[in-house]
Amino acid sequence: MRQSKMFIPTQREVPASAESLSHQLMLKSGMIKQLARGVYTYLPITKMVLKNIEEIVREEMNQVGGNEVQMPVLAPKELWEESGRWEKYGKELIRLKDRHDRDFLLGPTHEEVVVDLVRDELKSYKRLPLTIYQIQTKFRDELRPRFGLLRGREFMMKDAYSFHVDQESLTKTYNDMYGAYEKIFSRIGLDYRAVEADSGAIGGSHTHEFMALSEIGEDTIVFSEASDYAANIEKAQCLRPETKSDEVEKDIEKIETPNIKSVDELAELLGVKVEETTKTMVVEVDGELKMIVIRGDHELNTVKLKTFFNSKTEPELADETDILEVFNAHGGSLGPVNSKIPVYIDYQVEVMKNFPVGANEDNYHLKNVNLKDFEVEAFGDFRFITEGEMAPDGSGPVKFREGIEVGQVFELGTEYSESMNLTVLNDKGKSVPVLMGCYGIGISRTLSAIVEKYHDDNGIMWPKSVTPFDIHIVMMNVKKDEFVEPAETLYNSLSKDFKVLLDDRDERAGVKFNDSDLIGIPVRVVVGRGIKDGVVEVKFRNSDEKHDVKLEDLKSFIEEHYA
Amino acid sequence: MRQSKMFIPTQREVPASAESLSHQLMLKSGMIKQLARGVYTYLPITKMVLKNIEEIVREEMNQVGGNEVQMPVLAPKELWEESGRWEKYGKELIRLKDRHDRDFLLGPTHEEVVVDLVRDELKSYKRLPLTIYQIQTKFRDELRPRFGLLRGREFMMKDAYSFHVDQESLTKTYNDMYGAYEKIFSRIGLDYRAVEADSGAIGGSHTHEFMALSEIGEDTIVFSEASDYAANIEKAQCLRPETKSDEVEKDIEKIETPNIKSVDELAELLGVKVEETTKTMVVEVDGELKMIVIRGDHELNTVKLKTFFNSKTEPELADETDILEVFNAHGGSLGPVNSKIPVYIDYQVEVMKNFPVGANEDNYHLKNVNLKDFEVEAFGDFRFITEGEMAPDGSGPVKFREGIEVGQVFELGTEYSESMNLTVLNDKGKSVPVLMGCYGIGISRTLSAIVEKYHDDNGIMWPKSVTPFDIHIVMMNVKKDEFVEPAETLYNSLSKDFKVLLDDRDERAGVKFNDSDLIGIPVRVVVGRGIKDGVVEVKFRNSDEKHDVKLEDLKSFIEEHYA
Repeated sequence: MRQSKMFIPTQREVPASAESLSHQLMLKSGMIKQLARGVYTYLPITKMVLKNIEEIVREEMNQVGGNEVQMPVLAPKELWEESGRWEKYGKELIRLKDRHDRDFLLGPTHEEVVVDLVRDELKSYKRLPLTIYQIQTKFRDELRPRFGLLRGREFMMKDAYSFHVDQESLTKTYNDMYGAYEKIFSRIGLDYRAVEADSGAIGGSHTHEFMALSEIGEDTIVFSEASDYAANIEKAQCLRPETKSDEVEKDIEKIETPNIKSVDELAELLGVKVEETTKTMVVEVDGELKMIVIRGDHELNTVKLKTFFNSKTEPELADETDILEVFNAHGGSLGPVNSKIPVYIDYQVEVMKNFPVGANEDNYHLKNVNLKDFEVEAFGDFRFITEGEMAPDGSGPVKFREGIEVGQVFELGTEYSESMNLTVLNDKGKSVPVLMGCYGIGISRTLSAIVEKYHDDNGIMWPKSVTPFDIHIVMMNVKKDEFVEPAETLYNSLSKDFKVLLDDRDERAGVKFNDSDLIGIPVRVVVGRGIKDGVVEVKFRNSDEKHDVKLEDLKSFIEEHYA
Repeated sequence: MRQSKMFIPTQREVPASAESLSHQLMLKSGMIKQLARGVYTYLPITKMVLKNIEEIVREEMNQVGGNEVQMPVLAPKELWEESGRWEKYGKELIRLKDRHDRDFLLGPTHEEVVVDLVRDELKSYKRLPLTIYQIQTKFRDELRPRFGLLRGREFMMKDAYSFHVDQESLTKTYNDMYGAYEKIFSRIGLDYRAVEADSGAIGGSHTHEFMALSEIGEDTIVFSEASDYAANIEKAQCLRPETKSDEVEKDIEKIETPNIKSVDELAELLGVKVEETTKTMVVEVDGELKMIVIRGDHELNTVKLKTFFNSKTEPELADETDILEVFNAHGGSLGPVNSKIPVYIDYQVEVMKNFPVGANEDNYHLKNVNLKDFEVEAFGDFRFITEGEMAPDGSGPVKFREGIEVGQVFELGTEYSESMNLTVLNDKGKSVPVLMGCYGIGISRTLSAIVEKYHDDNGIMWPKSVTPFDIHIVMMNVKKDEFVEPAETLYNSLSKDFKVLLDDRDERAGVKFNDSDLIGIPVRVVVGRGIKDGVVEVKFRNSDEKHDVKLEDLKSFIEEHYA
């Protein structure tokens, strides 16, 4: 294509609000333009790369038996009431009314719609398994859209849904999808890890996230270098210590702790390390208050609490007013001794001795507290793992990496088929709820993840798998026939075997080279002064070396070096 | 692909609400499923055909220099306020609020968004002309969605926008687009006519609609068999008669006409033909009342009134209460003699003599009225043309055909660039508003138009250009190896050269043949009893003839007959 006819509005400056590298680079290289917060137009280069990504995804989905469909963006409230998500989904769901005052939503995901799609048709197990997928624009009204296409309010997703009569069949498709995802992200060229993840608001149990490793990841991946173990930090399990402290248990002592606001201050006052202190927190679990005690240097993990208590929603820290009402003391002065609510102790506190806790009385703590001094409802894993701890598989210490979630596979089980009455007759003629899996890939996120990985200080460096063009021909002076004619001839001949962009714009050489680096096409061919001797300059985007190549050798030179 | 793994839920019965043939056939052949009124899921066959249509459209758009982009579905209110359409567009515009209570809409068309996209970038005429297009889901909250994908609330559109520094450039791109549309609809295989059309709510002046001829068309096309003349009936011009009636003018006579409610009753009472009577109507034009007089047998055309009066909105018939207030008489008793509002006379009334009109007094008419008896503000063309009248180009009588609008090309001019401040510096360094064109194709409508044309009583008959598969292999009995093995071998070998669907379902032969006809793949190959002698039965969907073909001749037989 001719660059003079293309809309690639490269920029010298980008707004300071562009926080991530991919966001900055996509603005600079004229790939996206913001229309509203978290809402972007995909310009021609982006559209080309997205189509390449989509095609890879489509091929691998078809390989595992996927049926491509297109479900509507609009979905009626009634369907989402059946699943209970109309109420549960919260403010991220974009709701609207039609001209007849009927309620609709813009689909952020399509479990309800796909169940409705198949439930009239699937009568017998003979029609199963069935896998349906689509590549479509999705909507999520993020509170804080940011990082360009990484966290937008309107974005491209591939979402797939599978239907099964039994767990064996679901497991097979789950594994097929897992394999397809590995192929997709390998073909695209991302460094990724498949990690154990929390199933979040979609429900279900067994799930993996595919995380592209990246400096700017929004998620932290916990992994072991000594094994395959990898998990999202929300999910990464902390081991229960096997040995208790061998200290002698002392007697409780009540001490005055005026103006102590943090565990650091408490540790300093007591002359101990922070990890020798504890933190007591009160959380609300489906309307009931529970007391959680963790080590002073640890962080509470409410995702784990949700799993532990099997609660409907994710537990939240209790309001200060509720705490005052129950304890007649503020949140900073609480502890398990004589607690008025059930007490849950983190595994790491289980092995401590002679630790300090709040006295349930403002400005007082108790020291030398031991497990025998209070009633314990249960012990559990209530905190985030920390870097360097033993991995849950015992293989060695965990490390942390930042990552971008580009895909996720879920075993949904019967969550939606039960609430929405999707059943089939099994081979014994008995009506059973259909088992489901669902499988997402963030198409526009994947594009961002590619840019996060493939770039240098001068711009993007597209991997061949998704590049918008193979070759960028730069014509040095569009007003001189001595450059124009051979460049045009070259453009026509190379276009037979490659995707070629011809920079035929009336711009200075410096502008053209800058734009060429920004746009990041793998092979650059400059038609310059050497052309009078039949020589062009070839430079690959991922190297600084320049090669003078004779026209007659050009095609084979490119084929050899651009693999 | 294997039919056993595909989701093609064919139906025996379709709801009575499916009014059009394409709607019925697409439901029967398992191509679409309704989610809400006017909102459909596109099932696998539909998705395949749509992709084929899209690819043809994309190729021809790229040929005329189009830049493919993807603009967002969501657009902020502020942009549409700039153009004035936030207010003007009415209830078909789907509006919503985000979590921060900001107003958005779901794009039914993207003039505002595309102007915003380019206005920061286009500074100089050197960047022009520029053409941008997208293939995208659009939203229009139709009052009465119907006919399946023909008039939906969520639908697929190709919309293109071009930008120019002068009319010459706009005309060139308009003509290029017109040519591209001719290629597109010819390649797809539709019988179409490009007709002069009204520019409607989008604004602008020069415009053509591409209408697929069809039994069920929602629009009427007026055309001449003796020339290229064709127009939408809303636009088709009526000629001004050259000769007046040579009757002698008589004197006005007031007559009592109690209970006369229609021109038919009036004609009967007076003993004349309906075409010898007149109809007087009062319309509201931007808040002012105007009287329009047309012949008794003609129909008022408010689209022509809008053009004639150059009014902001389409004129509507005045309320009966407003009429009573001004005339102290009801709408059925009005006439131009002593009218209290300006009088406009249709060309066909201009040549009449001694005609009857209402007396502006209930239950009375005047007969033998002539032009000299009242004041005329202006004469004009205020009515719909009727079949058999002379075409406006004088080539012969017009005929009517029903059609489906599948595309439209518009010269928008400076309507949006002026209201939204899109200017460039021209070659004299002067800032000028950019001229725009816009060009739409209804992708999902085009699919319906194809089905309206290509079918018989048994189902769809896909034209090769867009068919989801070339060959449908029907395996007669999936439980017998004697059929299964050769069918599988055939499937693998034919798949190298053709898109093949293998019916490997465990169903009766009758079900398979019915479904095969419904789905409408051009070539059917039956692996049946003949296979023991190496013979299969070949039938083309558009013929009743069956051919016994030897396996070794099959490929060349198909290549020869399926062109």
